[in-house]
Amino acid sequence: MKNKLKIYPFGGVGEIGSNMTVFETKNHLVIIDYGILFPYDDFFDINYLIADSSQLPEGKEKTLFITHGHEDHIGAISHFVQDHPEVKILAPKFPSVLIKDKLDRRKINREIQIYEESSIFTFDEFELHPIHVTHSIPETFGLVFYNKAFSTLFISDFKFDLNPLFEKPFNYQKIQDLFNKSDKTLAMLDSTNILSPGKTLSESDLTHDLTTILSQNKRTFLTMFASNLYRIQNILEIAKKLNKKVTTIGRSLSRYIDSAEASDLFQREDYPIIDFDSIKNYSDPNIIYIVTGSQGEFLGATKRIINGDQKNIGLTPDDQFVFSSKPIPGNEKQIYRLYNKLADYGVDTITFRTHQIHASGHPCQEDLKELIKLIKPKVYIPIHGETYFLKAHKEFIEENFPDIQPITLANFEGIEIEGNQISKLNFNEIEPHIIHGNDVIIEKEKISERRKLACNGLVTISINHKSKNIQISTKGLPNIVDNELLKLKDVVDYSAFVEFKNRDHDYTTEQIRIKTRNFYNHLIGYKPITIVHMV
Amino acid sequence: MKNKLKIYPFGGVGEIGSNMTVFETKNHLVIIDYGILFPYDDFFDINYLIADSSQLPEGKEKTLFITHGHEDHIGAISHFVQDHPEVKILAPKFPSVLIKDKLDRRKINREIQIYEESSIFTFDEFELHPIHVTHSIPETFGLVFYNKAFSTLFISDFKFDLNPLFEKPFNYQKIQDLFNKSDKTLAMLDSTNILSPGKTLSESDLTHDLTTILSQNKRTFLTMFASNLYRIQNILEIAKKLNKKVTTIGRSLSRYIDSAEASDLFQREDYPIIDFDSIKNYSDPNIIYIVTGSQGEFLGATKRIINGDQKNIGLTPDDQFVFSSKPIPGNEKQIYRLYNKLADYGVDTITFRTHQIHASGHPCQEDLKELIKLIKPKVYIPIHGETYFLKAHKEFIEENFPDIQPITLANFEGIEIEGNQISKLNFNEIEPHIIHGNDVIIEKEKISERRKLACNGLVTISINHKSKNIQISTKGLPNIVDNELLKLKDVVDYSAFVEFKNRDHDYTTEQIRIKTRNFYNHLIGYKPITIVHMV
Repeated sequence: MKNKLKIYPFGGVGEIGSNMTVFETKNHLVIIDYGILFPYDDFFDINYLIADSSQLPEGKEKTLFITHGHEDHIGAISHFVQDHPEVKILAPKFPSVLIKDKLDRRKINREIQIYEESSIFTFDEFELHPIHVTHSIPETFGLVFYNKAFSTLFISDFKFDLNPLFEKPFNYQKIQDLFNKSDKTLAMLDSTNILSPGKTLSESDLTHDLTTILSQNKRTFLTMFASNLYRIQNILEIAKKLNKKVTTIGRSLSRYIDSAEASDLFQREDYPIIDFDSIKNYSDPNIIYIVTGSQGEFLGATKRIINGDQKNIGLTPDDQFVFSSKPIPGNEKQIYRLYNKLADYGVDTITFRTHQIHASGHPCQEDLKELIKLIKPKVYIPIHGETYFLKAHKEFIEENFPDIQPITLANFEGIEIEGNQISKLNFNEIEPHIIHGNDVIIEKEKISERRKLACNGLVTISINHKSKNIQISTKGLPNIVDNELLKLKDVVDYSAFVEFKNRDHDYTTEQIRIKTRNFYNHLIGYKPITIVHMV
Repeated sequence: MKNKLKIYPFGGVGEIGSNMTVFETKNHLVIIDYGILFPYDDFFDINYLIADSSQLPEGKEKTLFITHGHEDHIGAISHFVQDHPEVKILAPKFPSVLIKDKLDRRKINREIQIYEESSIFTFDEFELHPIHVTHSIPETFGLVFYNKAFSTLFISDFKFDLNPLFEKPFNYQKIQDLFNKSDKTLAMLDSTNILSPGKTLSESDLTHDLTTILSQNKRTFLTMFASNLYRIQNILEIAKKLNKKVTTIGRSLSRYIDSAEASDLFQREDYPIIDFDSIKNYSDPNIIYIVTGSQGEFLGATKRIINGDQKNIGLTPDDQFVFSSKPIPGNEKQIYRLYNKLADYGVDTITFRTHQIHASGHPCQEDLKELIKLIKPKVYIPIHGETYFLKAHKEFIEENFPDIQPITLANFEGIEIEGNQISKLNFNEIEPHIIHGNDVIIEKEKISERRKLACNGLVTISINHKSKNIQISTKGLPNIVDNELLKLKDVVDYSAFVEFKNRDHDYTTEQIRIKTRNFYNHLIGYKPITIVHMV
C-alpha cells in the first residue's frame, strides 16, 4: 500500500463555488479550501451553499490547506471548524487575516499556521510544496503534492501572468523542478475561461487606460471587486501621480484594505487616501471614489449611489462612473439597470467594452497552452468550472495535447493512485447545504415552499368552531381578491357549519382549503397557498 | 394649427418591451403597436407588464397600427381592445393571423384590416406609408408618416438586410422617395444593437454552417425562437437537400408554422416535415428535432428534453444539440445550466460562439451608418432600447452625423411638430400594469409582499380567545423552526392569556406578532412574515 493517494472533490467541480478537494494519504486528509457557492436567483435571499463534508473518512489527521482568500475558497471555514474541530489550518498570510476576521465575527478562536512559498509539508510519503501563482487577489498559491513515483499539480484559480504588478511572476519553474523529479505527473487546472481564445490581460495592461480615464477633470466613481488589492494599489499609484485623492465607499473595501495593511501588502500612509466622512467638498473633481457593488448587488455602494441613497453624493452629468469589472453571467440584467439609471442622470458610464480596464483572474486558452507546454503533465484533470466548461476543457486537451491523458471528475467522484496506476473512485452524491440567516441550514423543500408563496400568494383562514367566527387574511394577492373576501367568507361559513359540520376538523379544514383554492383559481387563474386553522 | 403632429411613446422607450407609440393628428390617434414586457426575475411568475393607455386623449378616432408579430408589439392587444373597444386595427397578413389566434383564445371577436406595402392611409393632413423592412419575423414593416412639410420614419425593429432569404430586401428606396419630397425629415430607429460595432449577419449567412452541422450523421436537436419562420424555412430547405426529416417539439412552433401556412408563407407539404407522434424510430440520425425554449424557459421543450421529461426522447452521446440563438441578457445562467446537463449526457452542444448559426434581428453600428447615409434624416430619435442604449445611440449620431439633430425621449415624453418646428411634450409618468393569471392586474406592492414571503418565510397563528386553543403553522422555514414550535406556543399563550389578556384583540394580536418575529429573529437571524388571528 505504499504511495497510495486518493484525490476527490466534494465541491467546486461542475459548479463555480463551494470549493473543496481532498488529498487522502494513509494517515492524512488534506482538504484544499472550503468555500461558499453563491446561490442561483431562484433561491431568493439565502446566504450561500456549502459542500457537505460528512463523508470525510474517520480516524485520519485533518489539515485544511487554503490556496487564497476568495470567498468561494475560504467563505465556509467557520462551518468546517465547527463540524471538524480537530482540523489544523494552513494559510498564506493575507488569507489568514481574512479568515481570522471571519472567525472572530462568529466568536470562534482558532490558530492558523502561516505558510510561505518555501514551506514544505509532509503527509506520509508525500510532500506538499506551495507554488506561487498570479490571480485577482494577492497571495494565491497552487500546490504540488509531490512524490517520486507520482506528483500532482493542483491550481484551482490562477492567471498565467509573467509580468504582474506588485508581486512576483507565476512560478512555473518550481513546478518544472518538481515534475522533472517525478515518474508520472498529473495537472489539475482552472477551467473558468476555457471558452475564451487568446490570452488574459495582466493587471499591468490596465495602467494605461485607467490613467487616461482618471486624469479627466471629472469626479470619478470606480467600482470593482474589493478583494482585488493589486488593482486598488494600481489606482492608488495612478492617483498619487495625478495628484488626486482616493476614498472608498462600502464596508468590504475598508475590510480588505485593513487586511492588506495587516499583511504588509501596502500601507495607507503611502497613498493619498482620505476618509469619506472627512471630505469637505464632495463634488471635487480631484476625488476618486472607489466603491463596492460592481455586480449591482443589492447592498453594494454602486446601487446605493445610483439610487440616490448615499449621503453627500448626488450624481450629475459632470461625473463619470467606471466599471473596472465584467458582469458575472446572470448579473447582466441588474447591471444594465444601473447603466440605465446612470444614463438618466447623464453620467458617462465607462466599461470594459470600450476601455482596457478589467483583467480576468483566470487563464484563457493560449495561457493554458503556454503553461502546459512548460510543465508537460502526463495526466490532466480540468477543475474549477461548470460541467460544460470541464467538458470543453477536456476536448481542448485532446485537441491540443494528444499525448496527455485527460480525465474528467464530478463532485463526489475521485481518483486513486497507487504507484503510478490510476483508478476511479465514487462517493455518494450529497446536495450542498443551503445556509440562510444566522448560519442556519434550510432544507431544499422549504425553498420550494418559498417559491410557491412567491408565485401564488397566500390566504390564511382561521375558524372558531364554537363561536363560528371566521377571519381571513391574504398576502401577495391582487386587490380584486380582497374585494371578493365576503364571498369567500360565505363559502367557508357554509362548508364549516353546514356542509361538513359533522365531520372531524381535519377533514373539514382540508375541504375548505380545496374550496378556497378553487374559488381563487376561478377568479384569478391560479391557486394561492392556503392555510386553514380551526381552533 | 395646420400640419400639427404629436409623437409620444407610452411604452418601449427606456425598456425592451411593451411597445406603444402614438402619432396624434387633429382628429386621429394612430397607436403603433401594443405589446408586452417580459418581467424581471424578481417579479416571480407573473405573465407580463403592459403600458398604461389611460392618458390617450378623448374624442379622436383611434387606429392601432401593427408593425410586426413579435409579442412585445402585439402581445397586449386583447387588453387594448377591451379598454378601447372602438379602436380600428391595421396589420400585415401574417401578424393578423397571430393576433386573430390570440383574440380567439380570449373569445374576443374583432375585425382586422390587412395592409400591404402599397397601402396608404390618410390621417388628416398626413399620409401613412408602410415600409417593407427585414427583421427576425416575416412581414415586418416600418412606416413613414408623410407630409410635405415634415415626414417621420418610424422603424422600431429591423435589420438592414439587402440579401435576405425568402423575402424582398429592406426597401430603403421608398424612404428616400418620401423623404426627398419633404422639407424636414425625422428618423426614429432601433437601438437594440447600438453597442455592437460591425454589421449584423443576414439569415442567408447562416446556411453554410447550418448545412455543415445538419449533415452530421447524428440525431440533431436544434432550438431557436419559434417566430423566426425564415430560419425555420432555411432549415427545412437544408433538410430537404440532405434527405433528412424534420419534426417540431413545443406548442409555439406548431402555432407559428400553422400561422405561416395560413398566411401563405410556406406550406408543410413542400417540406419533409413529419409529425412527432408518428415517428417509428426516435433515435434515427436522419431526424432533425426543432424545439422551443432556446432561452432555457421553464416550460420550453429544450428544458423538458434535457431534464428527461420528454416522452420518447432520451439523450445520448451520439446526439448533438444546436442553439441557433443567443442568450438574452439575464438568461445566461439558466442557459448554462442546460449546457451543463448536456455535458453530463456527453452531448455535443453547438452554439453561436463557434459557428455562424444565429443572426440578430437588429442593426449594428455599420448597418445604421449605411442606412442613415442613404436616407439623410435632419432630426433623429433613438427608440427601442433601454436608457443606456438610447444615450449611446444619441452619442453615436453626434459622433458620426454632426449635421443631424438628435433628440432623446423617455416614455411619456414626446414631441410636437407644427409646420417644421419641434417642441417637447410631457405626460404623467405611469407605471406599467403587472398582469398575472387570467389577465388580472396585480399591484406592485403585492409583488413586494410576495418577495417578503419568499425571502423570510411565513408563520400563521390562530388563537381561540375563549377556549385558549392555539394553532401555529409555518411555510418556507427551516426544520429547526418547527422543532421549537412548542416554545413559541408558550410565548403566544402567555402573551394572549396572561400578559395582554385585558387588552383588546387588535392590540394583543399585534403584540404577539412582534414577539413571534423577535422569537424567530433570535433563533434564525431573520423575521418571517407573521399573521396572527384571534377568533
